[in-house]
Amino acid sequence: MSIADIVQRSDTTPGRIFDWTVIALIVISIVMLSIATLPDLSQPVRSFLTIAEIFVLALFALEYCLRIVTAPRKFGYIFSFYGIVDLMTIVPFCLTLGAIDLRALRILRLFRIIRILKLSRYSQAMSRFREALALAREEIVLFSAVTAILLYLAALGIYHFEHAAQPEAFSSVLHSLWWAAVTLTTVGYGDVYPVTTGGKLFTFVILMCGMGIVAVPAGIIAGALYRVNQNEDREKSL
Amino acid sequence: MSIADIVQRSDTTPGRIFDWTVIALIVISIVMLSIATLPDLSQPVRSFLTIAEIFVLALFALEYCLRIVTAPRKFGYIFSFYGIVDLMTIVPFCLTLGAIDLRALRILRLFRIIRILKLSRYSQAMSRFREALALAREEIVLFSAVTAILLYLAALGIYHFEHAAQPEAFSSVLHSLWWAAVTLTTVGYGDVYPVTTGGKLFTFVILMCGMGIVAVPAGIIAGALYRVNQNEDREKSL
Amino acid sequence: MSIADIVQRSDTTPGRIFDWTVIALIVISIVMLSIATLPDLSQPVRSFLTIAEIFVLALFALEYCLRIVTAPRKFGYIFSFYGIVDLMTIVPFCLTLGAIDLRALRILRLFRIIRILKLSRYSQAMSRFREALALAREEIVLFSAVTAILLYLAALGIYHFEHAAQPEAFSSVLHSLWWAAVTLTTVGYGDVYPVTTGGKLFTFVILMCGMGIVAVPAGIIAGALYRVNQNEDREKSL
Amino acid sequence: MSIADIVQRSDTTPGRIFDWTVIALIVISIVMLSIATLPDLSQPVRSFLTIAEIFVLALFALEYCLRIVTAPRKFGYIFSFYGIVDLMTIVPFCLTLGAIDLRALRILRLFRIIRILKLSRYSQAMSRFREALALAREEIVLFSAVTAILLYLAALGIYHFEHAAQPEAFSSVLHSLWWAAVTLTTVGYGDVYPVTTGGKLFTFVILMCGMGIVAVPAGIIAGALYRVNQNEDREKSL
Repeated sequence: MSIADIVQRSDTTPGRIFDWTVIALIVISIVMLSIATLPDLSQPVRSFLTIAEIFVLALFALEYCLRIVTAPRKFGYIFSFYGIVDLMTIVPFCLTLGAIDLRALRILRLFRIIRILKLSRYSQAMSRFREALALAREEIVLFSAVTAILLYLAALGIYHFEHAAQPEAFSSVLHSLWWAAVTLTTVGYGDVYPVTTGGKLFTFVILMCGMGIVAVPAGIIAGALYRVNQNEDREKSL
Repeated sequence: MSIADIVQRSDTTPGRIFDWTVIALIVISIVMLSIATLPDLSQPVRSFLTIAEIFVLALFALEYCLRIVTAPRKFGYIFSFYGIVDLMTIVPFCLTLGAIDLRALRILRLFRIIRILKLSRYSQAMSRFREALALAREEIVLFSAVTAILLYLAALGIYHFEHAAQPEAFSSVLHSLWWAAVTLTTVGYGDVYPVTTGGKLFTFVILMCGMGIVAVPAGIIAGALYRVNQNEDREKSL
Repeated sequence: MSIADIVQRSDTTPGRIFDWTVIALIVISIVMLSIATLPDLSQPVRSFLTIAEIFVLALFALEYCLRIVTAPRKFGYIFSFYGIVDLMTIVPFCLTLGAIDLRALRILRLFRIIRILKLSRYSQAMSRFREALALAREEIVLFSAVTAILLYLAALGIYHFEHAAQPEAFSSVLHSLWWAAVTLTTVGYGDVYPVTTGGKLFTFVILMCGMGIVAVPAGIIAGALYRVNQNEDREKSL
Repeated sequence: MSIADIVQRSDTTPGRIFDWTVIALIVISIVMLSIATLPDLSQPVRSFLTIAEIFVLALFALEYCLRIVTAPRKFGYIFSFYGIVDLMTIVPFCLTLGAIDLRALRILRLFRIIRILKLSRYSQAMSRFREALALAREEIVLFSAVTAILLYLAALGIYHFEHAAQPEAFSSVLHSLWWAAVTLTTVGYGDVYPVTTGGKLFTFVILMCGMGIVAVPAGIIAGALYRVNQNEDREKSL
């Protein structure tokens, strides 16, 4: 069992421990970044967050070195997408004292969770999902187009009905699109809603027609996933 | 490769480029129409939008001429549904100087997106969807009837419970239908909601019964689409 | 073609026309009943509604007579569930001049729509739905129980967290159930929502766990309907 | 038919009656607990609730004794999970006069509903559900991870766009997570929503991408349940 096996592979126990440690570190660092945006933090907490962040960055730097050392093709790793992501996420470490604020790059750590998921046994579930998307591509594109047209027609109609009564909320077709999106996804904040009888009738009709259309893409994806699983079962049983 | 092949067909590269150019032009013109409804537009922007609209109209007129010239049966095209739509969408070009405002006709351009989608390879996904609707027609009609009855009963019940407490919001059964639609589709704007204990209990019961019924039609469509896909797979494998 | 064939059967053209005429009359009478609850109706409109209502009642009375005359077993019809419903819906006709207000009985007309749907070819879709419910009965009961427990736990938890901060909105566990139902069905009126950090965290957790559980019954029904359809296809192809 | 058969088994008529009696008692006691939290209860109602609670506790104590007496291995029952739950739910009976308030333990009675459901014929539906969860485990974990990342990105983005305009509602990334959860689950209370153009555009994009992803897990569970049912059918027909 060499260091390369631990860092690069996910099918051995030490490799899995390494992967989960990195994921845990990423999650901890993201939680800390979120806490740091809280207002009214006391000075000791701020200090602790800064020190913990430096500590996590040091561990990421160590991981980066380990990945370079153990990579079969070193330059291939350094200039690969994930190699650059790994470098980006530790850059703030080198520049915290400089004038340029590169801390926003730390959000790139989320990409690294995806990388690790890809390596591990979730890669199979991911490829199943990609296959399902390929199977249902045409239906999804078609329904997305229909959804887009419906959204636009809803915005256009409500603009026609409500513009005179609520010039603030429905000041243009583009502003009405906000209402259309919030309504057809059934979020319904309540910041904009029709008040005229015509607008309410129009919303009624749009809701009755639109519910089905907007909900169908999720059903299509679920159905396609099911087909992929069934094909797999059939291949196994042969 | 003649002009007719480019304009009328969708299975060649130039034909596809032509189709996507027209779709892009339609989308651009619709976005411009929406921007034109924005309040507080500066004069230069208004001028630009007018000029761009004239330019797009000229292109649509050119496309219309090309379609007539390349149509196998010229009168057949001119008096077909899409031929009339094509003409309607360029009519404002000829009448911008006249007194009658025919600009509302420009919204017909949306129909042309559907025409092009129908021509192209999405026609297969569309016919699959039509087949699925045919398979599930009886279930959809039945559930739509049940949903309509449920909507009406909900409106009637809430009118009974809330009319005395909120005579403004629930002033009649028809006004209560607005509440029923907004509630059963789970939009829930928050402009009308029950305040009495009876009304809240009634809403509780309606929500528990209604959720399933309202969500089922989308599930039926997804299931029917799945069956159509499965039948296709079976035919291919034979 | 006798009158009996027209009134009692649904598989002939005159029979279907009779059925649809009755459904149309029911829908018209229900729409008129709803309009009659509108405030600020002018006197001519009120008069028209009263006359139209008497006219519709006369037609229903005629239909009732026809059904008795053409019934194979007259007393069997009169004392059957739908015979009583038919009678109930015309009772107000006889009592409009009396002191007792039996007009609420007119809502029973909705039952008659169900009767006619049962007679016609939608009976097959209905029996399919009943079969699907039978297939999925245990899952639906189980999930309904889990949903009920979840609703109760959510109400209990939010009462614990929010009672001190909002004694009005969350004044008891029973009042909190209103919040739980409005939240877990994703209606979200916005009349009650957590304001404390603890309440928001609790809602966050409940939403993440609850979404799936609450949405599953609809998925189960759709899946069971699909199985029923598939079994039918298999029987046909044998 | 001995007492043991009645208490321990669920496949005989007396056993089922015993089970449903216990479930009814649990439900009644929980409803009474909820009513007891109502404000403004009159003194006679309070007294009745206290007496009824003592009566129910006595019945639960009796049931506990019966279960010990009839258990094949007495100590095995007393120290099993459900044995301890049974004891916990009657402990308040013994301690109502003491100083320590153990009444919160009464909520454990909910666990006992699960125990009885497990014993009875719903155990099959439960094991089907567990099997479905096992089948779809990888997809559910993957989608939950994607949902979590999406929630976080939504919170981060809206914090970026809205923090300046609404420092109260979006005071930190953690506070913005509340908005993200309420929006992506389509609850949409309306207590926090974007007001800037950037924030609205961002919400629009998040809603369009997010709807599908958040709805997929429920679809996956339904699909997996369907597969489990189909496998069962196949085994029966062999």
